Amino acid sequence: MSTPDHRFLRALRREPVDTTPVWIMRQAGRYLPEYRATRERAGNFLTMAQTPEIACEVTLQPLARFPLDAAILFSDILTIPDAMGLGLHFVDGEGPKLRHPVRSAADVARLGVPDPETDLRYVPDAVRLIRRELKDRAPLIGFSGSPWTLACYMIEGEGSSNFSRAKAMALDDAPTMHRLLDVLARSVSTYLAAQAAAGAQALMVFDTWGGLLAPSMFREFSQRYLAQIVAALKAHPAVADVPVILFSKGANAHLETLADSGCDGLGLDWTVDIADARARVGSRVALQGNLDPAVLAASPEAIRGEARRIIDGFGAHPGHVFNLGHGITPDIKPEHVAVLVDAVHEFGRRTA
Amino acid sequence: MSTPDHRFLRALRREPVDTTPVWIMRQAGRYLPEYRATRERAGNFLTMAQTPEIACEVTLQPLARFPLDAAILFSDILTIPDAMGLGLHFVDGEGPKLRHPVRSAADVARLGVPDPETDLRYVPDAVRLIRRELKDRAPLIGFSGSPWTLACYMIEGEGSSNFSRAKAMALDDAPTMHRLLDVLARSVSTYLAAQAAAGAQALMVFDTWGGLLAPSMFREFSQRYLAQIVAALKAHPAVADVPVILFSKGANAHLETLADSGCDGLGLDWTVDIADARARVGSRVALQGNLDPAVLAASPEAIRGEARRIIDGFGAHPGHVFNLGHGITPDIKPEHVAVLVDAVHEFGRRTA
Repeated sequence: MSTPDHRFLRALRREPVDTTPVWIMRQAGRYLPEYRATRERAGNFLTMAQTPEIACEVTLQPLARFPLDAAILFSDILTIPDAMGLGLHFVDGEGPKLRHPVRSAADVARLGVPDPETDLRYVPDAVRLIRRELKDRAPLIGFSGSPWTLACYMIEGEGSSNFSRAKAMALDDAPTMHRLLDVLARSVSTYLAAQAAAGAQALMVFDTWGGLLAPSMFREFSQRYLAQIVAALKAHPAVADVPVILFSKGANAHLETLADSGCDGLGLDWTVDIADARARVGSRVALQGNLDPAVLAASPEAIRGEARRIIDGFGAHPGHVFNLGHGITPDIKPEHVAVLVDAVHEFGRRTA
Repeated sequence: MSTPDHRFLRALRREPVDTTPVWIMRQAGRYLPEYRATRERAGNFLTMAQTPEIACEVTLQPLARFPLDAAILFSDILTIPDAMGLGLHFVDGEGPKLRHPVRSAADVARLGVPDPETDLRYVPDAVRLIRRELKDRAPLIGFSGSPWTLACYMIEGEGSSNFSRAKAMALDDAPTMHRLLDVLARSVSTYLAAQAAAGAQALMVFDTWGGLLAPSMFREFSQRYLAQIVAALKAHPAVADVPVILFSKGANAHLETLADSGCDGLGLDWTVDIADARARVGSRVALQGNLDPAVLAASPEAIRGEARRIIDGFGAHPGHVFNLGHGITPDIKPEHVAVLVDAVHEFGRRTA
């Protein structure tokens, strides 16, 4: 199953590469006409994520267009809360919602760790199918939402601008919040291990809402559980050598602490200078990022210029995976993605 | 006109105070029933901002309820683009919009610096009226949006999740963007000087969208024009001693550079540890912040605990103005604001 020579995996291990590997968060997404066509046919997002054949089809779509260095499992961030019985559904134009939000200690006490091979079977099934169809052209990344990010949605029942209800639970009933985060950390660890066992060659944890926390709360309610997940995966003999990437959006103040978790790579949003980030974490971890997604709305010349700036900023060390600092948006022209991928491969040869 | 003994002004000058001064961003806002009543009567937000008697009434409302250490002019962030002829209006539930967005070099070339005492007369008129009605109970803060933040709205014509059109103009036509930012910086300087001449005792620049920029772009398109404004105000004999506070939300990587602008205070959002921020900028500037606004949705005990944590974190130096890290939200109970203001004054005595 292992593909040790792919430049994406080599970069995560901080080994020399021929050029900088690149993939794009949300690369299987609405900016692609073929994705929109599949979604039209499937009817809705959840059917896409829960049908392995469709998840496989859209996972591979961007790789058919662009010479990307990794595929990422097409799935939803809220699969675990759904498997816990919270009733995930989508309301058009409003994003994901949960029918049964978690609001009390009793609600938390009822939650158990889902079994990935039964309760979330469609996920490892999709991983196995994608690996078969990918035929080792590129490594496959599995992923999960982070405990704090999942807790935010589980408590609010939907997205929020500030997740004040989740923060209030953390402040007013820390023991209940810690019980919730612990069951989530165990669920995420089990879920990611199952994805690796099914064939995922790297694992990424998206802590999308970690950066909304004040530093003291970030350490207590987000970082601690990210570290618990990394420790669990690294203690698991079957998956210990699968690289783990942590991405806490907006948590640039915490890069050193996150690097100390034992993870292999850190995602960077675009508000940090990658040269500064590299100086702070050294070669302990690879860095993944960090182009502002909005740059893809500018001209090809600007895209090339900004790609070069980031590659030169990281410098001639091993351990850079190029990516955006957040997911690609639906308004972007696919031709601009092609410009970016080619620019990364071109400029990456100079520092490789 | 000057009120040198108010603890808010003393703290901005890094002079000893009896306790930590506190005010709250958006303190005259929808969380107050009396504000909602005035708004109902006025019909819309713009009428409120453009009628000095109403602006005065709502500016004073929170001071009648809470022992706040400063009042802030009730106004809109987009008064300058409106005075430039861009047609500010509000669409219910959608926020501010501009009828004539700026999209080209020709659009930029048409823009001139508004005369505050004619084109924006309602603003200095409101400042004069508020000063008269305040009777020196508390100092009055005047404010403006920053050049980059105003440019974002002027280019997009409305709010945006990532202001990609504004960023694309910066990347693809930097000379035009610099011409736009320069006319805005001159307009903001003139506008703030007029507010100070009318009686504003401190001035604040809200760089709400600066933190959305990558560091290299922040320095070129936001920080540079903030520094230009501070330099212009400090070179203006009539207003040179009026303290200036810069607040670049999300731009925590740039605190040292912002402090070097010659401003008197820096606003902090809640994602930076105030002890770290103090260690980085020393006593060069006062720091204003930095409670997560979401904490006000938690219990009185949590509000007191977090207020204490921040006051203790800043430590026993002069130069702390307590505030939230962003505006108060409409869902907050006024009683919780009372708890916060009292807690700041109580705990502030320990470190004062």
